[in-house]
Amino acid sequence: MYRPEIKVLDCTIRDGGLINKWQFSDELVRATYQAVCDAGVDYMEIGYKASLDMFDPKEYGKWRFCEEDAVKRVLDGLELKSKLACMVDVGRVNIAEILPARESIFDMIRVACYIKEVDKGIALANQIMDQGYEVTLNLMAVSTNLEKDIDEALAQINETAIPCVYVVDSYGSMYCEDITFLVKKYLQAMPGKTMGIHCHNNRQLAFGNTIQAIIDGSNMIDASIYGIGRGAGNCTLELLLGFLKNPKYNLRPVLKLIQDYFVPLRNQIEWGYIIPLMITGTFNEHPRAGIEWRAGENRDKYAEFYDRLTRSEIIE
Amino acid sequence: MYRPEIKVLDCTIRDGGLINKWQFSDELVRATYQAVCDAGVDYMEIGYKASLDMFDPKEYGKWRFCEEDAVKRVLDGLELKSKLACMVDVGRVNIAEILPARESIFDMIRVACYIKEVDKGIALANQIMDQGYEVTLNLMAVSTNLEKDIDEALAQINETAIPCVYVVDSYGSMYCEDITFLVKKYLQAMPGKTMGIHCHNNRQLAFGNTIQAIIDGSNMIDASIYGIGRGAGNCTLELLLGFLKNPKYNLRPVLKLIQDYFVPLRNQIEWGYIIPLMITGTFNEHPRAGIEWRAGENRDKYAEFYDRLTRSEIIE
Repeated sequence: MYRPEIKVLDCTIRDGGLINKWQFSDELVRATYQAVCDAGVDYMEIGYKASLDMFDPKEYGKWRFCEEDAVKRVLDGLELKSKLACMVDVGRVNIAEILPARESIFDMIRVACYIKEVDKGIALANQIMDQGYEVTLNLMAVSTNLEKDIDEALAQINETAIPCVYVVDSYGSMYCEDITFLVKKYLQAMPGKTMGIHCHNNRQLAFGNTIQAIIDGSNMIDASIYGIGRGAGNCTLELLLGFLKNPKYNLRPVLKLIQDYFVPLRNQIEWGYIIPLMITGTFNEHPRAGIEWRAGENRDKYAEFYDRLTRSEIIE
Repeated sequence: MYRPEIKVLDCTIRDGGLINKWQFSDELVRATYQAVCDAGVDYMEIGYKASLDMFDPKEYGKWRFCEEDAVKRVLDGLELKSKLACMVDVGRVNIAEILPARESIFDMIRVACYIKEVDKGIALANQIMDQGYEVTLNLMAVSTNLEKDIDEALAQINETAIPCVYVVDSYGSMYCEDITFLVKKYLQAMPGKTMGIHCHNNRQLAFGNTIQAIIDGSNMIDASIYGIGRGAGNCTLELLLGFLKNPKYNLRPVLKLIQDYFVPLRNQIEWGYIIPLMITGTFNEHPRAGIEWRAGENRDKYAEFYDRLTRSEIIE
């Protein structure tokens, strides 16, 4: 697939940090950024920006906070070929701590929110745009909303200057037909805006669904190295780059990074095709239950986990 | 997806045996057949039927040969709820050794052949149909053929009584658009025949492509437990059963089987998302090169494997 408008965003550190509380070594993050640049990837999202008074820095690594000086120190001396992004969650960031874009190492700040808090998401995105950043709005867990609420949120966003809105399959529960339905709905409701796609891989569909979204018109595409991300993880960057035909992308630096850093990391922390997370995806459930199950002593008792989800008391 | 015509075929032992020369324990095969029956799966392909004088029984397990008595002994006492199938390769089976269907434990024999040997495949399928079996013709590695040769083969098959023909993505190199193109082509060239789909998972697309084939009209669907199969493996049976809405299918017995047998087996033999096999899939290459690389001392040197495939001498 070749379409010059397509941009790729690597979310390795931001989404991967949800597994290990962002306790990545500086060396790994630096090597990842270098590889992402060498691969010609357009953006790298290097963490969340959050207030230091909301999370304990003893427990969470620096990529939970993305303080300007800390990020600059780690990337010191590297040519910043890929644009840098970070993510903010509604209610977990102090806007007063965000520098004007011209003084920041970041080019883009992405706002994550649920449909039910879209007003707060829009307000935060507006404040960030006022500071001069590129902005996206990532509507999480859309698979759990009624269509009328989605439509209402999209109509509101359409009235704003937010240039890019994401379809996010937070639970890894969507099929290609769901992707087509939502991407077309978003495009129709918000003409002129760029559509993003962020898929989770609970059912080995993240790459296939990402391709479907590209076919349907998405031009801002998320992926992560070796698929790292909470639970089942994401669309893998190496598969995505193998699919895109733009000659600016180069697969080899990503393969080298995987062998040097991410295969060893995968032996320490878990993500990927894991049956309890396949089950939560199949049932359109938050991965939390599956992740907790994997942390317990019955981690490989898949039938019992299935029973837990399917044989709970029925709530009429 | 619910369509009453859809049938599922489990190819766990047949395709998985390509990894370990069919050296599965009787206990594992028996438990697999029992779980497949309990899950409501329509067919189980339990191995290849091959002449004992073509392969050394000291090297290859009994599922390479599928002798009637051996199969009956292993399944003795079980209710044969799922139909039993085996596969034959053109040139590797002695038709004289195949019993008439009424004397056999097998209901179906699937013929695998390349487009270039379709005449032999048709002749073998005809002989097997004459013996009273259900038959399918599985056209391997179709991604490597010129369209005119595919069209010619399909026209020939259309003249036969073979009821079911498979689109086979042997190299795991196809995208959803390729699946749609081929399934529609096959359906148009051979009206009235059932279309099968058999996908490999080199690029995490086996399940997504299988869904696409179902949307496009395929009704005979291959999958394997936990995706076991040569190299990257197949569409997983557990994902497929989670997708199909026919109430006759039941996911739980498959999950129990995975935890009891296939997670331990995966610790002994390798299949799944493995970068060298992702690379062969991306380049539409036979997985052989990737499997050999994984058997060598540089097994985790992915960039070097990539170089090997992309920097070979150019053949004009």
